[in-house]
Amino acid sequence: MKKYCFGIDVGGTTIKCGLLNTEGNLLDKWEIPTRLEENGSYILPDIAETINRKLEERGLTKNEIEGIGLDIPGPVNEDGVCMLAVNLHWGQVNIVREMEKLTGIRTKAVNDANAAALGECWKGGGAGHKNLIMVTLGTGIGGGIVVEGKVIAGAHGSGGEIGHVHVTEELTEPCNCGNVGCLEQVASATGIVLLAKMQLEKDKETPSVLRGKQFTAKDVWDAVKAGDEVADAVAEKFGLYLGRALASFASVTDPEIYVIGGGVSKAGPVLLDYVQKYYRQYAFPGCKDAAFALATLGNDAGVYGAAKLVL
Amino acid sequence: MKKYCFGIDVGGTTIKCGLLNTEGNLLDKWEIPTRLEENGSYILPDIAETINRKLEERGLTKNEIEGIGLDIPGPVNEDGVCMLAVNLHWGQVNIVREMEKLTGIRTKAVNDANAAALGECWKGGGAGHKNLIMVTLGTGIGGGIVVEGKVIAGAHGSGGEIGHVHVTEELTEPCNCGNVGCLEQVASATGIVLLAKMQLEKDKETPSVLRGKQFTAKDVWDAVKAGDEVADAVAEKFGLYLGRALASFASVTDPEIYVIGGGVSKAGPVLLDYVQKYYRQYAFPGCKDAAFALATLGNDAGVYGAAKLVL
Repeated sequence: MKKYCFGIDVGGTTIKCGLLNTEGNLLDKWEIPTRLEENGSYILPDIAETINRKLEERGLTKNEIEGIGLDIPGPVNEDGVCMLAVNLHWGQVNIVREMEKLTGIRTKAVNDANAAALGECWKGGGAGHKNLIMVTLGTGIGGGIVVEGKVIAGAHGSGGEIGHVHVTEELTEPCNCGNVGCLEQVASATGIVLLAKMQLEKDKETPSVLRGKQFTAKDVWDAVKAGDEVADAVAEKFGLYLGRALASFASVTDPEIYVIGGGVSKAGPVLLDYVQKYYRQYAFPGCKDAAFALATLGNDAGVYGAAKLVL
Repeated sequence: MKKYCFGIDVGGTTIKCGLLNTEGNLLDKWEIPTRLEENGSYILPDIAETINRKLEERGLTKNEIEGIGLDIPGPVNEDGVCMLAVNLHWGQVNIVREMEKLTGIRTKAVNDANAAALGECWKGGGAGHKNLIMVTLGTGIGGGIVVEGKVIAGAHGSGGEIGHVHVTEELTEPCNCGNVGCLEQVASATGIVLLAKMQLEKDKETPSVLRGKQFTAKDVWDAVKAGDEVADAVAEKFGLYLGRALASFASVTDPEIYVIGGGVSKAGPVLLDYVQKYYRQYAFPGCKDAAFALATLGNDAGVYGAAKLVL
C-alpha cells in the first residue's frame, strides 16, 4: 500500500484539491480556478500541473501515490467517462484515460454528489457505516448511494440522481430535467421557497413572518423554529415529499443511515425531525429504524470521497 | 476453480435443488418436501442429506464442490442470517453457519426474490447485463436489485422489497405490511383484481367481459388483449403505478434493464408496453432508454441465482 493519494473536487468555479494519506487524513488543501475556456479543455491539464507541483513541493515521487480520485458536476459512468457536464462546458470526456495520460498516476472519477456520499460515509456523518444514502439539498438536489462501501455509479451514470424522482401532482411547471413534479422542485432551496409561496397563497388569512417579503429557504426554516404556522405547514410538506421518497429508496438498497447535507441542511436537526416523521410512516417495516444524520464535512466531502475512490 | 455447485431454492411447500457446473449448466434438478414441523428445524438437515446423497449418487467428493447457494422466502442479511421466515416457521436462523456445519461445504444464503434476480441476470431475461432490477409479480410482489453482478441484500435484509413502496393515495385498506397504498396492493395478481373491481365500480355504464363475474389477474389481461375498455383502463393504472415506481428506482441504482417475472408476467409483452409507457414518462432523462424484458427461467430462477451466489 502506497502512502498518499489526491482527492480533486471539480466545480464550475473552483477546483478543490486535497493531499491525503491513505488513512484518510487531509494533509494539505488548496484551490485552483476552473478555466472554462475552449470547452473546458484546460481543466484536466491544470489539475495535472497542480498535482505535479504539489509532489515537487512535498518532495514526493509518483511511486508513493496510490492514485488520483476526481469528481465532477455531471454523470460519470463506471469506466470514468463523463457523458456531459454543462457546468464545465464539457461534452463526452474520458476523464480516467486523459488524467492517467497526463500524470502517469492511476485515476478514478465519479459524479460530485456520489463523491460527497462516499466522503460522508468514510469520514463524515455516516462514518462507521457501509450502506448509506446521502441527499444534498442545495439550489438543486443531488444524491449518492453507497452499498458495501462502494458508490453506485449506475449504467448511465445516473445512480443517486434522486432529485428527479416524481413526488407530487401539485405542480404544473416543468423541472430543469423536463419532467414535472420532481423532488428537486419541492425540497431543494428553491423548492422550499416555492412551497412557501404556495402555502402563503393557500393560507391567505394566516399571519406569517414570511408574508409580503422576499425570502430564502433559510428564512423559512428560521420561521419554522420561531413557531410560524405557515412555515410549519411548509416543513411538513417538505418532510412528506423527502421522507416518503427516502422510504421508497429504503425498499431498493435498504441503507443503515441517511445523511442530509447541502446548504439547506444548515437548518439543523429540526429538518431531520420533519423528514424522519414521514420516512417512518411510509418505510417498509424492516427499514423503519434506519438512522438519520446531518452531513459534517461541508465543502470537503467531495475531496474526501474522491480520494476514497482510489483506496 | 472447482467444477460443481448446488443451488437450493427453499419454498414453503417444496425445496427445489439443482446441481450445476461452474459454467452455469443445470446438470440435475430434483425436489424434496419442505417439512415445517418443529419450527422448520428439519429443513436444513434435509437439504444436507439430499446433497450428500447426490454427491454419492454422482460419485463426487466435497472437494469438487465450489459451494452451496441457498435462498429462502424471507429477509437474509449479508452474513447469511435469516431474521424471520414465517412460511418456513423460522425465527432467527444462521443459515450459513448451520449449513456449513452440516455439510462441511462453503454456503451462502439470500432472500428468494434476490436469488431470482441474480438468476435472471445470469442466465435469464437479463443475461449479458450486470445492473438489473427484477420485479416478481405473483400473489405478492418481490424484487431484487443487482449492481455489478451482485445482489443488494441491504442493511436489514430488505434490499429489493419493492412491493412495499408507497404508490397511491386511492386505497384505504392496509397492506399485509401494515402500510397503506403499497405497490403490491395494486400491481400483484391480487392487486390487479382489486384495481379491476374498482374500475368496474367507477365505469358503471361501460360494458366489460369482467362484469358480474369472479375473475383473476389472467382474466383481466385476456380482456386487455381482447380490447375490453375497462380492462384497458386497469392496465393503464397498473402501468402507471409500476412504471412510475420503477422510474423512481432508476434514480437510485440506474440499471441497464428491468426484468418482469412471476405469474402475472405470463400476460406477455403487452404488460411491458403499459409499464414502459409510464416508466419513460417519469424516468430521469439519462435513464429513459433502459431495456425491459420478461423473465425466462420460470421456477428455476431461484436455483440458478442461489448457485451463482457461490461462484
